[in-house]
Amino acid sequence: MSAPARQIPFAELVNLLQRIFVRHGCSESVAGVLAANCASAQRDGAHSHGVFRIPGYVSTLASGWVAGRAEPVVRDVASGYVSVDAGGGFAQPALAAARDLLVRKARSAGIAVLAIHNSHHFAALWPDVEPFADEGLVALSVVNSMTCVVPEGAQRPLFGTNPIAFAAPCAGGAPIVFDMATSAIAHGDVQIAARKGELLPEGMGVDRAGQPTRDPAAILDGGALLPFGGHKGSALSMMVELLAAALTGGNFSFEFDWSQHPGAKTPWTGQLLIVIDPSLAQGERFAERSRELARQMEAVGVTRMPGARRFKERAKSAREGVSVTAEEWEQLQALA
Amino acid sequence: MSAPARQIPFAELVNLLQRIFVRHGCSESVAGVLAANCASAQRDGAHSHGVFRIPGYVSTLASGWVAGRAEPVVRDVASGYVSVDAGGGFAQPALAAARDLLVRKARSAGIAVLAIHNSHHFAALWPDVEPFADEGLVALSVVNSMTCVVPEGAQRPLFGTNPIAFAAPCAGGAPIVFDMATSAIAHGDVQIAARKGELLPEGMGVDRAGQPTRDPAAILDGGALLPFGGHKGSALSMMVELLAAALTGGNFSFEFDWSQHPGAKTPWTGQLLIVIDPSLAQGERFAERSRELARQMEAVGVTRMPGARRFKERAKSAREGVSVTAEEWEQLQALA
Repeated sequence: MSAPARQIPFAELVNLLQRIFVRHGCSESVAGVLAANCASAQRDGAHSHGVFRIPGYVSTLASGWVAGRAEPVVRDVASGYVSVDAGGGFAQPALAAARDLLVRKARSAGIAVLAIHNSHHFAALWPDVEPFADEGLVALSVVNSMTCVVPEGAQRPLFGTNPIAFAAPCAGGAPIVFDMATSAIAHGDVQIAARKGELLPEGMGVDRAGQPTRDPAAILDGGALLPFGGHKGSALSMMVELLAAALTGGNFSFEFDWSQHPGAKTPWTGQLLIVIDPSLAQGERFAERSRELARQMEAVGVTRMPGARRFKERAKSAREGVSVTAEEWEQLQALA
Repeated sequence: MSAPARQIPFAELVNLLQRIFVRHGCSESVAGVLAANCASAQRDGAHSHGVFRIPGYVSTLASGWVAGRAEPVVRDVASGYVSVDAGGGFAQPALAAARDLLVRKARSAGIAVLAIHNSHHFAALWPDVEPFADEGLVALSVVNSMTCVVPEGAQRPLFGTNPIAFAAPCAGGAPIVFDMATSAIAHGDVQIAARKGELLPEGMGVDRAGQPTRDPAAILDGGALLPFGGHKGSALSMMVELLAAALTGGNFSFEFDWSQHPGAKTPWTGQLLIVIDPSLAQGERFAERSRELARQMEAVGVTRMPGARRFKERAKSAREGVSVTAEEWEQLQALA
């Protein structure tokens, strides 16, 4: 039996994580962005992207694979187009550097795109889109990752888990937000299942021989994941490669080679965000219509709207503190 | 046994369909757009959206549900935003009316959005996006339809089949194009299976009691479809409702009431298109990167790229004429 979990105030967890990131090679500003991101995932019960990720961040920084002090270079390409060279650093500071310009363009042109390349994304994707919905904007983002998904009809893996995240404002409540891997299961969830020694459901992945398996260890040991929903999920994963890599100037999931950087865990690819301002054509009506859809979904029996579990966990964390296992807490203290 | 199929030159099929649309209440311009669209689907072997749809168009026009002579009203909302009121007519003429402005905005701003509302979409979605890729642009479109899909976790249907279509240029060849219902199966394919008396695969739909069924007739007779890929497909279908209806000012799939229009088949909703010009940031490189992705997909064993079957059928139709069954041909002649 493991020791009881600790409940940490959110700000304290952010501070601790920031110290860890700085100690292991990040600038103060990069550390601040990553710490807030990671602590938010832990706070919202999204544990596969919470403090569980810290050892991976640390080993990657130690390997020299990622530039922890990179300064993103923002380029104003056109009235609806922003491009950022993340300088081999993390994607989240690149988004932060371009965010104000992106929002100004979306509010002026009605829609704007942010293309990030030369970036590492090792976090959940919903933290990148949700804040736009808090400002009344609709946001869609895709990021490609690293070869671990077998395209439908293929024999070997090529795509990354390639998530798609979406956020829209909803009148009188939390925004509607989803973040889905286009793989049948997120890589972080396979890692967690392997650590717990649990079997996965059918249809999630294959072993190194390409045979279906429910063993997460077999998937991680030379096996691969399958796309969700067969050829449709596979086509969406392909679209993510095109938008997040080809369109941004980043690497495809199969292009980077980290073999000279033992300990490296972060995919060196690209990310695309599209932000739409619904108020230009619809005024305040969009968020009310969004609420109406949510109301009708509940009327036909949907008991949990996308994103609702995270908001519930977030409220609980605000009352009780952010839950971290005793083992995780010790590990974090050792790294700080 | 049915009589052998006829092979009709494409232009002749377009002319025949145009006469049918005009005879049953469309203006010449609307008839021209719909005829080219429907004949293209038949030409490309996309039979669920080919001449199979003509009786549905005709009965809908006869019912007074759709305005066959509507003149779309285009509104220039912002430097990246075009809105069209389709006037209760079809979506394709509304897209045609706004298309030049949309492309100019995408080429200038880098990205542009077209929001169509008060529109009926009864066709495949790939014909709406593919031509943008032919011009070097990346296009994404979503359209909502009519209540026939049970959201994940719900007891009753709410969403439409809500397809997502995507097109991207690919150097030295046909563009990469997909068009997928977010339901486990397209409604047209259920209709075709019912007509042929064939069973569907598992997991496509439920009967009127909400129980899983493989019988297409039971799905059509008060039953419903399921989303593809469980909660992920369901979330994407929800996103389509938000983008195609809430953002455009169109109806949700569950909002229109055609009970006073017997014979009406076309959903009265909205459609969204997003067009990106990759050349602003990437020059000619995007299409080359797209080709590289296709090459690598083939290298891991993908034998059929998304859209490839349609291009193959298109080439065959160009050589041999468009295949139409003898029964369909007779029906078309009777309607013309």
